[in-house]
Amino acid sequence: MRMIAYGFACLLSTLVIVSATVQAADQSASFDDDMLATAAELRDSALEGTDAWEIVNSLTTEVGPRLAGSTGDRAAVAWALQTLRELGFSNVRAENVEVPRWERGSIEARITEPFPQPLVATALGGSVGTPEEGLEAPVLQVADIAELESLPRSQIAGKIVFFNKRMRRTRDGAAYGEIVEARTDGPVAAARLGAVAVVIRSVGTSIARIAHTGTTQYVRDVREIPAVALSNADADMLEAQLDTGQRVAMHLELTSRHLPPARSANVIAEVPGTDSDADIVLLAAHLDSWDLGTGAVDDGAGVAIVVEAARRIAEAGAPLRRTVRVLLAANEEFGLSGAKAYAAARADRVGRHMVGMESDFGGGRIWRFESRVAGEARPLVEAIHTVLAPLDIELGGNEADGGADLSPMLELGMPVLGLTHDGTRYFDYHHSASDTLDKINRRHLDQCVAAYAVTAYLAAVAPRDFGRIEPEPEEPPAEVAPDVPDTEDDV
Amino acid sequence: MRMIAYGFACLLSTLVIVSATVQAADQSASFDDDMLATAAELRDSALEGTDAWEIVNSLTTEVGPRLAGSTGDRAAVAWALQTLRELGFSNVRAENVEVPRWERGSIEARITEPFPQPLVATALGGSVGTPEEGLEAPVLQVADIAELESLPRSQIAGKIVFFNKRMRRTRDGAAYGEIVEARTDGPVAAARLGAVAVVIRSVGTSIARIAHTGTTQYVRDVREIPAVALSNADADMLEAQLDTGQRVAMHLELTSRHLPPARSANVIAEVPGTDSDADIVLLAAHLDSWDLGTGAVDDGAGVAIVVEAARRIAEAGAPLRRTVRVLLAANEEFGLSGAKAYAAARADRVGRHMVGMESDFGGGRIWRFESRVAGEARPLVEAIHTVLAPLDIELGGNEADGGADLSPMLELGMPVLGLTHDGTRYFDYHHSASDTLDKINRRHLDQCVAAYAVTAYLAAVAPRDFGRIEPEPEEPPAEVAPDVPDTEDDV
Repeated sequence: MRMIAYGFACLLSTLVIVSATVQAADQSASFDDDMLATAAELRDSALEGTDAWEIVNSLTTEVGPRLAGSTGDRAAVAWALQTLRELGFSNVRAENVEVPRWERGSIEARITEPFPQPLVATALGGSVGTPEEGLEAPVLQVADIAELESLPRSQIAGKIVFFNKRMRRTRDGAAYGEIVEARTDGPVAAARLGAVAVVIRSVGTSIARIAHTGTTQYVRDVREIPAVALSNADADMLEAQLDTGQRVAMHLELTSRHLPPARSANVIAEVPGTDSDADIVLLAAHLDSWDLGTGAVDDGAGVAIVVEAARRIAEAGAPLRRTVRVLLAANEEFGLSGAKAYAAARADRVGRHMVGMESDFGGGRIWRFESRVAGEARPLVEAIHTVLAPLDIELGGNEADGGADLSPMLELGMPVLGLTHDGTRYFDYHHSASDTLDKINRRHLDQCVAAYAVTAYLAAVAPRDFGRIEPEPEEPPAEVAPDVPDTEDDV
Repeated sequence: MRMIAYGFACLLSTLVIVSATVQAADQSASFDDDMLATAAELRDSALEGTDAWEIVNSLTTEVGPRLAGSTGDRAAVAWALQTLRELGFSNVRAENVEVPRWERGSIEARITEPFPQPLVATALGGSVGTPEEGLEAPVLQVADIAELESLPRSQIAGKIVFFNKRMRRTRDGAAYGEIVEARTDGPVAAARLGAVAVVIRSVGTSIARIAHTGTTQYVRDVREIPAVALSNADADMLEAQLDTGQRVAMHLELTSRHLPPARSANVIAEVPGTDSDADIVLLAAHLDSWDLGTGAVDDGAGVAIVVEAARRIAEAGAPLRRTVRVLLAANEEFGLSGAKAYAAARADRVGRHMVGMESDFGGGRIWRFESRVAGEARPLVEAIHTVLAPLDIELGGNEADGGADLSPMLELGMPVLGLTHDGTRYFDYHHSASDTLDKINRRHLDQCVAAYAVTAYLAAVAPRDFGRIEPEPEEPPAEVAPDVPDTEDDV
């Protein structure tokens, strides 16, 4: 999960208020008894055991890390096409997507004074490297960008800026939006004030000595400075040395670099509806992952959940009016390439998407069902919730953000439903080497499949649609550097 | 904590039954009321807050990793001398100790077939490196040495042997003894049967993607093959690929090497007793650590506990008949150099040590008080326990092992007392990069200080001694290679 949409700004930190319109207010929201019985059967049979764990096992064991444009990314596309065909889906296909490509390289980070210590660190995704001989500079500690910008430039120039704010553990991931700004925008803010590099306390809750990566971004006309994350324990070490009141300096060597763009693909598969004129129910997850782990939690779990939920709907055999489409998106982590390409190619067909749902917050139990639909369609949401309630899922509000990969479609008016995973431990693993299969709980995954199968099935047979939503116009985005910088500069 | 004594074999896995003799059976075991009141005051004041956390903070922040013979090791000796003097101890001194020296170097480990994946691994302490170009071989999985030795040599020759047994989580660390054999003796067992390298599932309980190191040992006339540990998640990955039934091969590049021996030191400090003819109460911990973490848990916590306990006894000012001696031993982890040197230098003065206590199992709450003393001295142990009981410490038996650093003195007849830490999470961090200050709980550390202060004080004023113990003669140890191999071969 990236949770930050290029161009669309941060959906979590910048709450976009939407107004809702209804296109078909005269439709009934009630499901007939057969539909409700089928949904309940999908729910209960999933709790008896699904193949979702086997899917994420297969993806992580046979493919593993799959950073956009890498060998693993290509293997993941091949894996998805083969797996979806073997599982009996219809219209299995790849839609090519160009993706930016970046290589982590190697890192050496250490405190040089007052007390020399090696540090566990990792590059932020997209960071430039240091000069070959590395760089060494005194460290300036701030909590966040606001504090940095309150300081005189003379205090910042020539320094390594250390953004040191600790992430809270939350069930719904709200803490992510509170602190991720230092990772995404910290390097630009620091470079504008003359800093030579940025280190951040990892955006993560782990007490293991591992660093969490994630994208950062540069803007035109501001110097691109290296940016790395320290593990929480290493941020503690840097803080402890700063607490002595002595001058603290760091040495940093980083060989990260951008490479020419590469080809990847969105992989699509369908469970066809009976009415070829009907709208589509879109189930999304992303196929790429960061390079440090095997992407079991982010987003192997999501891939397994949406694939297995759709497969079980097909297997149940009850007629669907609408087609259920699975979208395994390319490159969510490093620029939302697949999501943007999907939406761009369908700018004139957005209205053919009845609703979207995305699983990209791990494999923890789902505890909340929320929506962003036309107000008059909320009774339909409430009707679906009656079948979800026995899964210990509460009904949330109508301000769901839909997830990063649905954001381009949401922007174009597609309603979204949200099934919120328990993310209490999600940020122990997120974007780190610890994102591996052992973090996936089979029973929790089955509960997620149950919830997705119920919701997608009922959406596909619903007697009415969810209307359309109209996001309020946003401020025009700041001019940002292209995802893929000039190759001459960076390769 | 190393828990394996060279020469003395594994004290946990090979239970040495001792018989007890009493040298002074006519002495009374009872403490007078003033002594008991002073002990209770030491206990209760420690629970109100001690400086133990500050000591481990200082050691880990200002020194950090301190592998035997390294720059950090030298810095630790200087730190200890300065700190103990500043804290007001008497007779603060360093006793030089020669220590073997080994360098971890770099590692690259990956599965090459059937599904290429990078692996997180680290060298076992003392491992030789691979040829410069690395080595590549098929993987043979076994649970333990017994299973390996049940296989025909033809199945093993030319293979990388994968010892894959998972460590249980236990409060008292008993699981360590159950599986550590693969780490200590696996490489020799595998090399004898023609294997080219060994990988083990880490002896550790962490779900983070970190590998746990620890010593391995070679013997004369058996080829020295590289030996590395995988993180639990990576052992899972290797296991999952083996589960496919396909041939699994690995590539391993390791630059570990032995260096010429170096000088380190035992650091000693005392709280003098009033009777210069009385025996000594010995409080031990070890000053060295593995190189991957900052050694907060192993054994910064122990250093802080014994130093702060002794300091508080001195500060209390009540007269002590016996001297309380703090021993911060050199190189516990990689050969018990300090402990052996301490005992060797005092072979004719072992009887001057009334009793030894060692803290080398982290900073978790102490839950058990045990002993290995002459049978007739158990009432003294029971009398001490009455003051410990309010700390929620139960009374254990008379088969304590005393800890690795006391084992040479125990062998020579010195009685030991044991205060058992709660080790439930100890092996999440042990010998790994995650062994850092954030794992130290200040309140738990204070409880440990309370227990050590009570026990050491009462031992120092006790009206009788603990007798002597006589370990049963062991089997003569197998001929082992010296700790420091010939430099021509290994440097």
